Amino acid sequence: MSSEEFTQHISKQFNADLEEVRSHILAMGGMVEKQVIDAVQALVEGDSALAAEVISNEKQVNGMERRIDEECTRIIALRQPAASDLRLLVAATKANTDLERIGDEANKIAKMAIRLSEDGAIPRGYIEIRHIGNHVNAMLRQALDAFARFDVEQAIAVVREDKSVDVEYESAMRLLVTFMMEDPRYIKRALNVMWSLRALERIGDHARNIAEQVIFLVKGKDIRHMPLSSLDDNDLVNNGEGV
Amino acid sequence: MSSEEFTQHISKQFNADLEEVRSHILAMGGMVEKQVIDAVQALVEGDSALAAEVISNEKQVNGMERRIDEECTRIIALRQPAASDLRLLVAATKANTDLERIGDEANKIAKMAIRLSEDGAIPRGYIEIRHIGNHVNAMLRQALDAFARFDVEQAIAVVREDKSVDVEYESAMRLLVTFMMEDPRYIKRALNVMWSLRALERIGDHARNIAEQVIFLVKGKDIRHMPLSSLDDNDLVNNGEGV
Repeated sequence: MSSEEFTQHISKQFNADLEEVRSHILAMGGMVEKQVIDAVQALVEGDSALAAEVISNEKQVNGMERRIDEECTRIIALRQPAASDLRLLVAATKANTDLERIGDEANKIAKMAIRLSEDGAIPRGYIEIRHIGNHVNAMLRQALDAFARFDVEQAIAVVREDKSVDVEYESAMRLLVTFMMEDPRYIKRALNVMWSLRALERIGDHARNIAEQVIFLVKGKDIRHMPLSSLDDNDLVNNGEGV
Repeated sequence: MSSEEFTQHISKQFNADLEEVRSHILAMGGMVEKQVIDAVQALVEGDSALAAEVISNEKQVNGMERRIDEECTRIIALRQPAASDLRLLVAATKANTDLERIGDEANKIAKMAIRLSEDGAIPRGYIEIRHIGNHVNAMLRQALDAFARFDVEQAIAVVREDKSVDVEYESAMRLLVTFMMEDPRYIKRALNVMWSLRALERIGDHARNIAEQVIFLVKGKDIRHMPLSSLDDNDLVNNGEGV
């Protein structure tokens, strides 16, 4: 299904409503993306002022979430959309929840950044934080891009990418466990780095969820909980509407 | 709004549809509740067979989530509900996501239970796991109860309860950090207990989310991200429909 198909409506107002939801989701996406980048930078560079900024922006993200939710519910009630339009609104509502949760995770990383800047840095884990941070941020950007262009192939790429984030995460965690055992004085601070890694790994999960919503949106096919291997299915990529 | 008000519809079929969604949500709630209880028991008692059972039940929970989601979308498309009925379907969709995530967390605890039963137990943290496990399970049961009876007061009680789980969680974490520093040989295993505590704390968050959906459902008021103090507002408890 192309972007145009979503915009062929008798009612111009309805059309405008749907476009607005889409652009609000993308604006919120841009906002949480910046939150994640700033939180990671604050942690890696020990910049507690930047971390405080992330924490104070959290309210704005929550406000955006509430407005998008209200918007979607209002449109469903007023316009009573069917088929692909309804799917767009359902997908937008779910993507909205995931974006807000990404904001929550960025907030947690910012809190850890403040603790670490108070307690002092540790000699391990920062490279991994930056690396995985870049990785999940790229996933998030691609998932939003896929949402903007109804691009199923890109969405499938994001779903696959999540596996490699998980591998990087596991390896970083092992490194930190070894480090803690070698030098127990660092346990407390290393735990803060671990919680931050965990938060990044969850951001990858949420980006994956958004990508799955794009696939549902375009194909009408709910691929959550399906094995990755089944995504090789050409049907999913090349056909028109699914179920 | 009482339960009867939700059931006064011209179409008997629509009525039956809504009741079915509600009962499916409650059935799924019962299922994930059991998953959490079993996962905690498996961990505390080192019962890896029970943990394996929890892990294999995960698929069933995911299947239930998918079916409820499809059901809600189908009803919205077919019946084009407005006002309170639409809110019920939106709330059900969101509660559904939270229940599935609780299932995920139970699954994680079960995995930790298997690791701990392989690596050997540690002398700390189990009392806290059991205690917080009971606490979040009670919250979950109350949230589902509130959902079943459209009971706003009980829902508000659950929202409040989440604060005290957070306090218990922080205290258990501090205990484990101290323990790790005293005896670094236990670091790896203590981390597994910490991840399980984290999972329980998140289950509390999800129970809170479900309770917030009940308030939204009955009052039409989105209380997410509102300060707890504002819940003292008698309007919220005693009045009829809100916004």
